Amino acid sequence: MSKRIITVSRQFGSGGRTIAKAVAERLGVAYYDKELIQKVAEKTGFSSEYIEENGEYAPSRSIFALASSYIGAPRVMGGMSAYDYLWVVQRNTIIEIADTEPCVIVGRCADYILRDRDDVLNVFVHAPTEARAERIVRLYGENEKKPEDRLKDKDSKRAINYKHFTGRTWGDANNYDVCINSDKLGIDKCVDLIVSIAE
Amino acid sequence: MSKRIITVSRQFGSGGRTIAKAVAERLGVAYYDKELIQKVAEKTGFSSEYIEENGEYAPSRSIFALASSYIGAPRVMGGMSAYDYLWVVQRNTIIEIADTEPCVIVGRCADYILRDRDDVLNVFVHAPTEARAERIVRLYGENEKKPEDRLKDKDSKRAINYKHFTGRTWGDANNYDVCINSDKLGIDKCVDLIVSIAE
Repeated sequence: MSKRIITVSRQFGSGGRTIAKAVAERLGVAYYDKELIQKVAEKTGFSSEYIEENGEYAPSRSIFALASSYIGAPRVMGGMSAYDYLWVVQRNTIIEIADTEPCVIVGRCADYILRDRDDVLNVFVHAPTEARAERIVRLYGENEKKPEDRLKDKDSKRAINYKHFTGRTWGDANNYDVCINSDKLGIDKCVDLIVSIAE
Repeated sequence: MSKRIITVSRQFGSGGRTIAKAVAERLGVAYYDKELIQKVAEKTGFSSEYIEENGEYAPSRSIFALASSYIGAPRVMGGMSAYDYLWVVQRNTIIEIADTEPCVIVGRCADYILRDRDDVLNVFVHAPTEARAERIVRLYGENEKKPEDRLKDKDSKRAINYKHFTGRTWGDANNYDVCINSDKLGIDKCVDLIVSIAE
Protein backbone atom coordinates (compact mmCIF):
# COMPACT_ATOMS: atom_id res chain seq x y z
CA MET A 1 0.00 0.00 0.00
CA SER A 2 1.41 3.32 -0.96
CA LYS A 3 -0.12 6.44 0.59
CA ARG A 4 0.93 9.93 -0.41
CA ILE A 5 -0.84 11.72 2.42
CA ILE A 6 -0.87 10.79 6.11
CA THR A 7 -3.21 12.61 8.48
CA VAL A 8 -2.47 12.34 12.19
CA SER A 9 -5.20 13.17 14.69
CA ARG A 10 -4.05 13.02 18.29
CA GLN A 11 -5.20 13.36 21.87
CA PHE A 12 -3.41 16.18 23.68
CA GLY A 13 -0.28 14.81 25.34
CA SER A 14 -0.28 11.52 23.42
CA GLY A 15 2.93 12.32 21.53
CA GLY A 16 1.00 12.31 18.24
CA ARG A 17 2.78 15.41 17.00
CA THR A 18 6.22 13.93 17.76
CA ILE A 19 5.19 10.73 15.97
CA ALA A 20 3.86 12.65 12.96
CA LYS A 21 7.06 14.67 12.62
CA ALA A 22 9.24 11.55 12.83
CA VAL A 23 7.09 9.79 10.22
CA ALA A 24 7.47 12.73 7.82
CA GLU A 25 11.25 12.69 8.33
CA ARG A 26 11.48 8.93 7.80
CA LEU A 27 9.40 9.11 4.63
CA GLY A 28 11.16 12.27 3.45
CA VAL A 29 7.90 14.18 2.92
CA ALA A 30 6.62 17.59 3.98
CA TYR A 31 5.18 18.08 7.48
CA TYR A 32 2.24 20.41 8.14
CA ASP A 33 1.38 21.58 11.61
CA LYS A 34 2.58 25.11 12.40
CA GLU A 35 3.40 25.28 8.67
CA LEU A 36 -0.30 24.96 7.93
CA ILE A 37 -1.13 27.71 10.41
CA GLN A 38 1.38 29.94 8.65
CA LYS A 39 -0.27 29.39 5.28
CA VAL A 40 -3.72 30.09 6.71
CA ALA A 41 -2.38 33.22 8.44
CA GLU A 42 -1.10 34.54 5.13
CA LYS A 43 -4.46 34.00 3.44
CA THR A 44 -6.72 35.35 6.19
CA GLY A 45 -4.67 38.00 7.87
CA PHE A 46 -5.53 36.39 11.22
CA SER A 47 -2.60 36.01 13.61
CA SER A 48 -0.96 32.60 14.05
CA GLU A 49 -2.04 32.61 17.69
CA TYR A 50 -5.67 33.08 16.72
CA ILE A 51 -5.54 30.31 14.17
CA GLU A 52 -3.78 27.96 16.55
CA GLU A 53 -6.36 28.68 19.23
CA ASN A 54 -9.45 28.44 17.03
CA GLY A 55 -8.50 26.34 14.00
CA GLU A 56 -9.21 23.00 15.65
CA TYR A 57 -10.96 23.86 18.88
CA ALA A 58 -14.53 24.71 19.77
CA PRO A 59 -14.97 28.47 19.48
CA SER A 60 -13.85 30.62 22.33
CA ARG A 61 -15.60 33.95 22.94
CA SER A 62 -12.57 35.72 21.54
CA ILE A 63 -13.14 34.66 17.95
CA PHE A 64 -16.61 36.18 17.95
CA ALA A 65 -15.20 39.38 19.39
CA LEU A 66 -12.61 39.24 16.64
CA ALA A 67 -15.25 38.85 13.95
CA SER A 68 -16.90 42.10 14.88
CA SER A 69 -13.72 44.08 15.50
CA TYR A 70 -11.50 42.87 12.69
CA ILE A 71 -11.44 45.38 9.87
CA GLY A 72 -10.12 43.37 6.93
CA ALA A 73 -11.96 40.10 7.41
CA PRO A 74 -15.67 40.96 7.19
CA ARG A 75 -15.29 42.12 3.60
CA VAL A 76 -14.02 38.68 2.50
CA MET A 77 -16.00 36.61 4.99
CA GLY A 78 -19.25 37.17 3.13
CA GLY A 79 -21.48 37.06 6.18
CA MET A 80 -19.74 34.00 7.71
CA SER A 81 -18.62 33.97 11.32
CA ALA A 82 -14.85 34.18 11.75
CA TYR A 83 -15.00 30.59 13.02
CA ASP A 84 -16.64 29.32 9.82
CA TYR A 85 -14.43 31.52 7.66
CA LEU A 86 -11.33 30.07 9.32
CA TRP A 87 -12.69 26.57 8.64
CA VAL A 88 -13.22 27.32 4.92
CA VAL A 89 -9.74 28.74 4.41
CA GLN A 90 -8.13 25.98 6.44
CA ARG A 91 -10.09 23.34 4.50
CA ASN A 92 -9.10 24.78 1.12
CA THR A 93 -5.48 25.02 2.23
CA ILE A 94 -5.45 21.34 3.24
CA ILE A 95 -6.93 20.31 -0.12
CA GLU A 96 -4.36 22.46 -1.92
CA ILE A 97 -1.45 20.98 0.07
CA ALA A 98 -2.66 17.41 -0.57
CA ASP A 99 -2.82 18.15 -4.30
CA THR A 100 0.68 19.59 -4.30
CA GLU A 101 2.94 17.15 -2.49
CA PRO A 102 3.16 13.99 -0.38
CA CYS A 103 2.96 15.05 3.26
CA VAL A 104 1.97 14.45 6.86
CA ILE A 105 -0.80 16.74 8.17
CA VAL A 106 -1.50 17.05 11.89
CA GLY A 107 -5.07 17.53 13.17
CA ARG A 108 -7.57 20.05 11.79
CA CYS A 109 -10.10 17.46 10.51
CA ALA A 110 -7.77 16.61 7.61
CA ASP A 111 -8.96 12.98 7.76
CA TYR A 112 -12.50 14.16 7.00
CA ILE A 113 -11.54 16.89 4.54
CA LEU A 114 -9.56 14.42 2.40
CA ARG A 115 -12.04 11.53 2.81
CA ASP A 116 -12.73 11.17 -0.93
CA ARG A 117 -9.09 10.59 -1.89
CA ASP A 118 -7.79 7.03 -1.89
CA ASP A 119 -4.13 7.91 -1.35
CA VAL A 120 -4.64 8.97 2.26
CA LEU A 121 -3.83 7.06 5.45
CA ASN A 122 -5.70 8.34 8.53
CA VAL A 123 -4.08 7.78 11.92
CA PHE A 124 -5.36 8.52 15.43
CA VAL A 125 -2.91 8.56 18.34
CA HIS A 126 -4.19 8.20 21.90
CA ALA A 127 -2.94 7.17 25.35
CA PRO A 128 -4.39 6.73 28.83
CA THR A 129 -4.95 9.91 30.85
CA GLU A 130 -2.21 9.20 33.42
CA ALA A 131 0.46 8.75 30.75
CA ARG A 132 -0.59 11.95 28.96
CA ALA A 133 -0.76 13.96 32.19
CA GLU A 134 2.78 12.88 33.02
CA ARG A 135 3.92 13.79 29.51
CA ILE A 136 2.47 17.32 29.39
CA VAL A 137 3.92 18.21 32.79
CA ARG A 138 7.31 16.90 31.67
CA LEU A 139 7.21 18.78 28.34
CA TYR A 140 5.26 21.94 29.08
CA GLY A 141 5.63 22.25 32.86
CA GLU A 142 2.95 22.75 35.48
CA ASN A 143 0.41 25.56 35.48
CA GLU A 144 -2.48 26.59 37.73
CA LYS A 145 -4.76 23.92 36.26
CA LYS A 146 -4.46 20.22 37.08
CA PRO A 147 -2.88 18.36 34.13
CA GLU A 148 -5.95 16.09 33.89
CA ASP A 149 -8.15 19.17 33.50
CA ARG A 150 -5.86 20.60 30.83
CA LEU A 151 -6.17 17.35 28.85
CA LYS A 152 -9.93 17.26 29.25
CA ASP A 153 -10.31 20.88 28.22
CA LYS A 154 -8.21 20.62 25.04
CA ASP A 155 -9.63 17.28 23.94
CA SER A 156 -13.24 18.20 24.52
CA LYS A 157 -12.75 21.37 22.45
CA ARG A 158 -11.17 19.31 19.67
CA ALA A 159 -14.06 16.81 19.84
CA ILE A 160 -16.68 19.58 19.62
CA ASN A 161 -14.90 21.22 16.70
CA TYR A 162 -14.67 17.85 14.90
CA LYS A 163 -18.35 17.07 15.52
CA HIS A 164 -19.40 20.53 14.38
CA PHE A 165 -17.65 20.39 11.02
CA THR A 166 -17.73 16.66 10.22
CA GLY A 167 -20.79 15.31 12.06
CA ARG A 168 -18.53 12.50 13.29
CA THR A 169 -17.31 11.40 16.70
CA TRP A 170 -13.67 12.22 17.38
CA GLY A 171 -11.76 9.06 18.38
CA ASP A 172 -14.32 6.65 16.90
CA ALA A 173 -12.15 3.92 15.33
CA ASN A 174 -14.33 3.90 12.21
CA ASN A 175 -13.01 7.30 11.14
CA TYR A 176 -9.38 6.23 10.96
CA ASP A 177 -7.38 3.48 9.23
CA VAL A 178 -5.13 2.97 12.24
CA CYS A 179 -5.55 3.99 15.89
CA ILE A 180 -2.66 3.43 18.27
CA ASN A 181 -2.07 3.66 21.99
CA SER A 182 1.31 5.44 22.09
CA ASP A 183 1.84 4.63 25.76
CA LYS A 184 1.41 0.88 25.27
CA LEU A 185 3.38 0.70 22.01
CA GLY A 186 5.97 3.42 22.63
CA ILE A 187 6.69 6.36 20.34
CA ASP A 188 9.34 4.57 18.22
CA LYS A 189 7.14 1.56 17.56
CA CYS A 190 4.27 3.86 16.53
CA VAL A 191 6.57 5.56 14.01
CA ASP A 192 7.78 2.20 12.62
CA LEU A 193 4.24 0.99 12.33
CA ILE A 194 2.90 4.00 10.44
CA VAL A 195 5.91 4.05 8.11
CA SER A 196 5.52 0.32 7.40
CA ILE A 197 1.85 0.80 6.50
CA ALA A 198 2.40 3.92 4.40
CA GLU A 199 5.24 2.49 2.33
CA MET B 1 6.97 -5.35 23.85
CA SER B 2 6.00 -8.92 24.56
CA LYS B 3 2.32 -9.68 25.06
CA ARG B 4 1.10 -13.11 26.11
CA ILE B 5 -2.57 -12.46 25.44
CA ILE B 6 -4.12 -10.81 22.37
CA THR B 7 -7.80 -9.95 22.36
CA VAL B 8 -9.44 -9.29 19.01
CA SER B 9 -12.75 -7.43 18.87
CA ARG B 10 -14.19 -7.16 15.39
CA GLN B 11 -17.04 -5.73 13.40
CA PHE B 12 -19.10 -8.40 11.68
CA GLY B 13 -17.66 -9.07 8.21
CA SER B 14 -14.38 -7.24 8.86
CA GLY B 15 -12.27 -10.41 8.67
CA GLY B 16 -11.28 -9.98 12.32
CA ARG B 17 -11.75 -13.67 13.06
CA THR B 18 -9.57 -14.69 10.08
CA ILE B 19 -6.91 -12.22 11.22
CA ALA B 20 -7.06 -13.47 14.82
CA LYS B 21 -6.66 -17.10 13.74
CA ALA B 22 -3.70 -16.27 11.51
CA VAL B 23 -2.03 -14.29 14.32
CA ALA B 24 -2.40 -17.25 16.70
CA GLU B 25 -0.87 -19.57 14.11
CA ARG B 26 2.02 -17.20 13.39
CA LEU B 27 2.75 -16.78 17.11
CA GLY B 28 2.20 -20.49 17.82
CA VAL B 29 -0.30 -19.82 20.61
CA ALA B 30 -3.78 -21.10 21.43
CA TYR B 31 -6.82 -19.62 19.68
CA TYR B 32 -10.13 -19.14 21.49
CA ASP B 33 -13.34 -18.51 19.62
CA LYS B 34 -15.55 -21.60 19.21
CA GLU B 35 -13.13 -23.22 21.66
CA LEU B 36 -14.25 -20.74 24.31
CA ILE B 37 -17.89 -21.50 23.59
CA GLN B 38 -17.15 -25.19 24.04
CA LYS B 39 -15.61 -24.59 27.47
CA VAL B 40 -18.55 -22.44 28.57
CA ALA B 41 -20.98 -25.08 27.26
CA GLU B 42 -19.32 -27.71 29.41
CA LYS B 43 -19.58 -25.53 32.52
CA THR B 44 -23.13 -24.28 32.06
CA GLY B 45 -24.91 -27.08 30.29
CA PHE B 46 -26.19 -24.52 27.76
CA SER B 47 -25.92 -25.58 24.10
CA SER B 48 -23.14 -24.13 21.95
CA GLU B 49 -25.78 -22.49 19.75
CA TYR B 50 -27.28 -20.67 22.73
CA ILE B 51 -23.90 -19.45 23.90
CA GLU B 52 -22.89 -18.34 20.44
CA GLU B 53 -26.16 -16.47 20.05
CA ASN B 54 -26.20 -14.83 23.48
CA GLY B 55 -22.60 -14.74 24.72
CA GLU B 56 -21.70 -11.50 22.99
CA TYR B 57 -24.98 -10.12 21.74
CA ALA B 58 -27.76 -8.12 23.34
CA PRO B 59 -30.27 -10.60 24.80
CA SER B 60 -32.82 -12.09 22.48
CA ARG B 61 -36.17 -13.15 23.89
CA SER B 62 -35.05 -16.76 23.67
CA ILE B 63 -32.55 -16.53 26.52
CA PHE B 64 -35.23 -15.34 28.91
CA ALA B 65 -37.49 -18.17 27.76
CA LEU B 66 -34.57 -20.48 28.40
CA ALA B 67 -34.09 -19.15 31.90
CA SER B 68 -37.58 -20.13 32.94
CA SER B 69 -37.71 -23.48 31.10
CA TYR B 70 -34.21 -24.84 31.66
CA ILE B 71 -34.20 -27.39 34.44
CA GLY B 72 -30.54 -27.61 35.42
CA ALA B 73 -29.52 -23.96 35.29
CA PRO B 74 -31.74 -22.14 37.83
CA ARG B 75 -30.23 -24.15 40.68
CA VAL B 76 -26.71 -22.88 39.91
CA MET B 77 -27.72 -19.45 38.63
CA GLY B 78 -28.55 -18.19 42.13
CA GLY B 79 -31.31 -15.82 41.07
CA MET B 80 -29.38 -14.40 38.10
CA SER B 81 -30.93 -14.19 34.64
CA ALA B 82 -29.50 -16.72 32.18
CA TYR B 83 -27.95 -13.75 30.35
CA ASP B 84 -26.04 -12.59 33.44
CA TYR B 85 -25.18 -16.16 34.42
CA LEU B 86 -23.69 -16.75 30.95
CA TRP B 87 -21.64 -13.55 31.37
CA VAL B 88 -20.24 -14.67 34.73
CA VAL B 89 -19.22 -18.11 33.50
CA GLN B 90 -17.78 -16.70 30.27
CA ARG B 91 -15.87 -14.05 32.22
CA ASN B 92 -14.39 -16.59 34.62
CA THR B 93 -13.45 -18.85 31.74
CA ILE B 94 -11.60 -16.02 29.97
CA ILE B 95 -9.67 -15.18 33.17
CA GLU B 96 -8.82 -18.86 33.62
CA ILE B 97 -7.60 -19.22 30.03
CA ALA B 98 -5.45 -16.06 30.28
CA ASP B 99 -3.86 -17.44 33.44
CA THR B 100 -3.12 -20.77 31.78
CA GLU B 101 -1.49 -20.07 28.43
CA PRO B 102 -0.54 -17.43 25.85
CA CYS B 103 -3.44 -17.11 23.45
CA VAL B 104 -5.61 -15.08 21.09
CA ILE B 105 -9.20 -14.54 22.28
CA VAL B 106 -11.91 -13.33 19.90
CA GLY B 107 -14.67 -11.01 21.11
CA ARG B 108 -16.71 -11.50 24.29
CA CYS B 109 -15.49 -8.34 26.05
CA ALA B 110 -12.13 -10.01 26.74
CA ASP B 111 -10.38 -6.63 26.38
CA TYR B 112 -12.42 -5.32 29.32
CA ILE B 113 -12.33 -8.52 31.36
CA LEU B 114 -8.51 -8.63 31.22
CA ARG B 115 -8.02 -4.85 31.59
CA ASP B 116 -5.95 -5.10 34.77
CA ARG B 117 -3.26 -7.33 33.23
CA ASP B 118 -0.28 -5.69 31.58
CA ASP B 119 0.57 -8.57 29.26
CA VAL B 120 -2.48 -8.05 27.05
CA LEU B 121 -2.70 -6.40 23.62
CA ASN B 122 -6.22 -5.28 22.67
CA VAL B 123 -7.04 -5.08 18.98
CA PHE B 124 -10.18 -3.83 17.20
CA VAL B 125 -10.73 -4.72 13.54
CA HIS B 126 -13.18 -2.72 11.44
CA ALA B 127 -13.91 -1.92 7.80
CA PRO B 128 -16.34 0.24 5.83
CA THR B 129 -19.87 -1.11 5.42
CA GLU B 130 -19.59 -1.74 1.65
CA ALA B 131 -16.46 -3.88 2.06
CA ARG B 132 -18.04 -5.90 4.87
CA ALA B 133 -21.30 -6.38 3.00
CA GLU B 134 -19.40 -7.73 0.02
CA ARG B 135 -17.41 -10.04 2.31
CA ILE B 136 -20.35 -11.62 4.14
CA VAL B 137 -22.22 -12.31 0.91
CA ARG B 138 -19.09 -13.91 -0.54
CA LEU B 139 -18.45 -16.03 2.58
CA TYR B 140 -21.90 -16.79 3.96
CA GLY B 141 -24.12 -16.25 0.90
CA GLU B 142 -27.26 -14.16 0.59
CA ASN B 143 -30.33 -14.47 2.78
CA GLU B 144 -33.70 -12.74 2.99
CA LYS B 145 -32.15 -9.71 4.76
CA LYS B 146 -30.05 -7.09 2.98
CA PRO B 147 -26.35 -7.58 3.88
CA GLU B 148 -26.18 -4.01 5.25
CA ASP B 149 -29.03 -4.84 7.64
CA ARG B 150 -27.33 -8.07 8.73
CA LEU B 151 -24.18 -6.08 9.59
CA LYS B 152 -26.15 -3.43 11.45
CA ASP B 153 -28.13 -6.02 13.40
CA LYS B 154 -25.11 -8.04 14.56
CA ASP B 155 -22.93 -5.03 15.36
CA SER B 156 -25.61 -3.14 17.27
CA LYS B 157 -26.25 -6.26 19.40
CA ARG B 158 -22.51 -6.54 20.10
CA ALA B 159 -22.38 -2.84 20.99
CA ILE B 160 -25.33 -3.13 23.40
CA ASN B 161 -23.85 -6.22 25.05
CA TYR B 162 -20.48 -4.46 25.43
CA LYS B 163 -22.08 -1.33 26.88
CA HIS B 164 -24.20 -3.38 29.28
CA PHE B 165 -21.32 -5.30 30.81
CA THR B 166 -18.44 -2.82 30.53
CA GLY B 167 -20.07 0.64 30.53
CA ARG B 168 -17.87 1.45 27.53
CA THR B 169 -18.55 2.31 23.91
CA TRP B 170 -17.73 -0.49 21.48
CA GLY B 171 -15.33 0.74 18.78
CA ASP B 172 -14.09 3.75 20.79
CA ALA B 173 -10.34 3.84 20.04
CA ASN B 174 -9.56 4.47 23.71
CA ASN B 175 -10.55 0.92 24.63
CA TYR B 176 -7.99 -0.75 22.39
CA ASP B 177 -4.24 -0.58 21.85
CA VAL B 178 -4.55 -0.90 18.08
CA CYS B 179 -7.55 -0.40 15.78
CA ILE B 180 -7.20 -1.30 12.12
CA ASN B 181 -9.23 -0.89 8.96
CA SER B 182 -8.84 -4.34 7.39
CA ASP B 183 -10.18 -3.18 4.04
CA LYS B 184 -7.65 -0.36 3.70
CA LEU B 185 -4.69 -2.37 5.02
CA GLY B 186 -5.61 -5.84 3.74
CA ILE B 187 -5.86 -9.00 5.85
CA ASP B 188 -2.18 -10.02 5.49
CA LYS B 189 -0.86 -6.61 6.49
CA CYS B 190 -3.14 -6.62 9.55
CA VAL B 191 -1.71 -9.98 10.60
CA ASP B 192 1.89 -8.77 10.09
CA LEU B 193 1.17 -5.65 12.07
CA ILE B 194 -0.36 -7.39 15.09
CA VAL B 195 2.40 -10.01 15.15
CA SER B 196 5.09 -7.31 14.96
CA ILE B 197 3.54 -5.47 17.91
CA ALA B 198 2.98 -8.57 20.01
CA GLU B 199 6.46 -9.96 19.57
